[in-house]
Amino acid sequence: AEVKKIAVIAGDGIGPEVVAEAEKVLKRTEELFGYKFETERALFGGIAIDEKGTPLPQETLEVCQKADAVLLGAVGGPKWDNNPKELRPETGLLGIRKALGLFSNLRPAVVFDCLKDASTLKPEVLEGTDLIVVRELTGGIYFGEKYRRDTEQGQEAVDTCAYNVSEVERIVRQAFEIAQKRRKKLASVDKANVLETSRLWREVVNRVAPEYPDVELEHVLVDNCAMQLLRRPASFDVIVTENMFGDILSDEAAMLTGSIGMLSSASLGEGSFGLYEPVHGSAPDIAGQNLANPIATILSVALMFRMTFGYADAADAIEAAVADVLNAGHRTGDIAVDKGQAVGTKEMGDLIVAAI
Amino acid sequence: AEVKKIAVIAGDGIGPEVVAEAEKVLKRTEELFGYKFETERALFGGIAIDEKGTPLPQETLEVCQKADAVLLGAVGGPKWDNNPKELRPETGLLGIRKALGLFSNLRPAVVFDCLKDASTLKPEVLEGTDLIVVRELTGGIYFGEKYRRDTEQGQEAVDTCAYNVSEVERIVRQAFEIAQKRRKKLASVDKANVLETSRLWREVVNRVAPEYPDVELEHVLVDNCAMQLLRRPASFDVIVTENMFGDILSDEAAMLTGSIGMLSSASLGEGSFGLYEPVHGSAPDIAGQNLANPIATILSVALMFRMTFGYADAADAIEAAVADVLNAGHRTGDIAVDKGQAVGTKEMGDLIVAAI
Ligand SMILES: CC(C)[C@H](C(=O)O)[C@@H](O)C(=O)O
Ligand SMILES: CC(C)[C@H](C(=O)O)[C@@H](O)C(=O)O
Repeated sequence: AEVKKIAVIAGDGIGPEVVAEAEKVLKRTEELFGYKFETERALFGGIAIDEKGTPLPQETLEVCQKADAVLLGAVGGPKWDNNPKELRPETGLLGIRKALGLFSNLRPAVVFDCLKDASTLKPEVLEGTDLIVVRELTGGIYFGEKYRRDTEQGQEAVDTCAYNVSEVERIVRQAFEIAQKRRKKLASVDKANVLETSRLWREVVNRVAPEYPDVELEHVLVDNCAMQLLRRPASFDVIVTENMFGDILSDEAAMLTGSIGMLSSASLGEGSFGLYEPVHGSAPDIAGQNLANPIATILSVALMFRMTFGYADAADAIEAAVADVLNAGHRTGDIAVDKGQAVGTKEMGDLIVAAI
Repeated sequence: AEVKKIAVIAGDGIGPEVVAEAEKVLKRTEELFGYKFETERALFGGIAIDEKGTPLPQETLEVCQKADAVLLGAVGGPKWDNNPKELRPETGLLGIRKALGLFSNLRPAVVFDCLKDASTLKPEVLEGTDLIVVRELTGGIYFGEKYRRDTEQGQEAVDTCAYNVSEVERIVRQAFEIAQKRRKKLASVDKANVLETSRLWREVVNRVAPEYPDVELEHVLVDNCAMQLLRRPASFDVIVTENMFGDILSDEAAMLTGSIGMLSSASLGEGSFGLYEPVHGSAPDIAGQNLANPIATILSVALMFRMTFGYADAADAIEAAVADVLNAGHRTGDIAVDKGQAVGTKEMGDLIVAAI
């Protein structure tokens, strides 16, 4: 098979531990399916600040640009939280998204049957919840001009939120296409009753919608969406929205599944290139103790196989292995009912590798 | 007693029906407590667009400005949804907030014991939830410059989010003071890892915090807050945040109580003046059918008594009456388990009036 290049960014906190387990899975699929991966490690986030003086070193970017896909652990931690902006892990995250043109962030929120009790929602409300948030990732208020200026009311801070038609159109079309392959329902979320960017957003959605006649479209205001996710999570299929709303709603959606340690995400640009990472953060409090749950990162590999490489067979095998291990009752501490019976990060990785 | 002037804005949809019941309550407290109210009705929202050609007629503003407090039903509906901006009910809402200087929106989210099953959250998670969202209401992206311009990537829309130090300081101080009268916990919500306005916000919070040493402060990122509201709602006491985040989070918080038809809100400026309204919307689908739940509007009167007039005795009496009526098993359709046994809007109003 063709050699696929994967840039591996372990990052901070539990990042290195969960990525190590995902690499075991990569290796095992090479043996079993005959695929060939060439991994190259790169420094990013807090560790890059410490070792290279910047969260996103140029050589890291080059490693990613040469690769077919990126696997990311997690970045950030209290150690860097009070740094100036250029020396913060988040700045690296925004920088890598922009530099790699990753304009779309896909965050599936699914309920793992064996974990449904972990949700704070009632099981009957959660029943059937299987949605995906398609978040615009390189525009909006995250990337607009930011500055301070002095006014008579004291210093003023300004953030600018901008979207142009092509930025909206490419993400909206992608969301329609994803919906066509799923349950054919799309909720476009905006605040068109207040924001000009939202009015542009809605115009674009309405203009392209007739090209996807098989998809049922609804417009939902962001405040209402925050409520409806709680009231009727199972009724959503694909949710598409701008950067900031997507940040908030995708986290809300992830939390309501109760499966946050298990959710993976993909950030995509034009073509098949993608960056894959768990939804959870770097959890510095449990780092280095073999306590982290590697499943979200392992499932990120499955997502990479499916979306970037088209290796559906290996993706299926990984997902089935995860399900088997969970069904056999194995749990890491974060999802274990009986903490005493919990397995460690490495053991969970080994169990999944053995089950593939 | 001194005559208190109340501007009464019925608005659209179920607005007139729920406001009518609140007026019965006003009348009854006059009889029982010897207070004197002078109410003046004013047109606002959709009905004002229809009758006066603008959502916020000048005379409505004058009626409010002359008053000691405003009671608002609800505004908006599909009829006006596709109007140009100047002819939309929401534009009136933003206009009245700005014109009356209502920079603070208080949205208590409490669980009514008899309704806790109505929440989609598990009862054990909800247990003890009693929080209030303090939302900045006249700044941020809602009120910043908005425009379109042509670019090479097609038309671009821009919204501007701005906050100055004094705007942040007055709302933050108010939130600290509210926390001092409650459980002494304040969560300040921002996105300081990305936004300049959030960094300013956090600086101001940290600067004034030492003046409120009895209040325990935490900074929570908005995406994390959307999650934590779901995971540990009872752990929040006061949440203070900027306009847009407050819009989203207060709706999420309201929905998780399961009591959305029962929640009231206050919008305050400098001094004791305030605008009081139910959290729910205008529900055009059930308007004019005697189906709406008037309790949130009636409780808005109690909130007005407490916060603007200092009539704690009457406020207590109204709240107790609502509790008695609910405990006796009376329900409007929205909160009834057995819809066949539900009472109408008017009957619910009469029951509460009789119980005061
Ligand atoms: C760390 C932060 C900049 C980032 C974001 O808001 O995009 C994170 O919350 C995420 O969702 O990936
Ligand atoms: C109607 C809309 C402009 C308004 C807002 O977003 O402020 C509403 O959602 C609210 O929360 O009062």
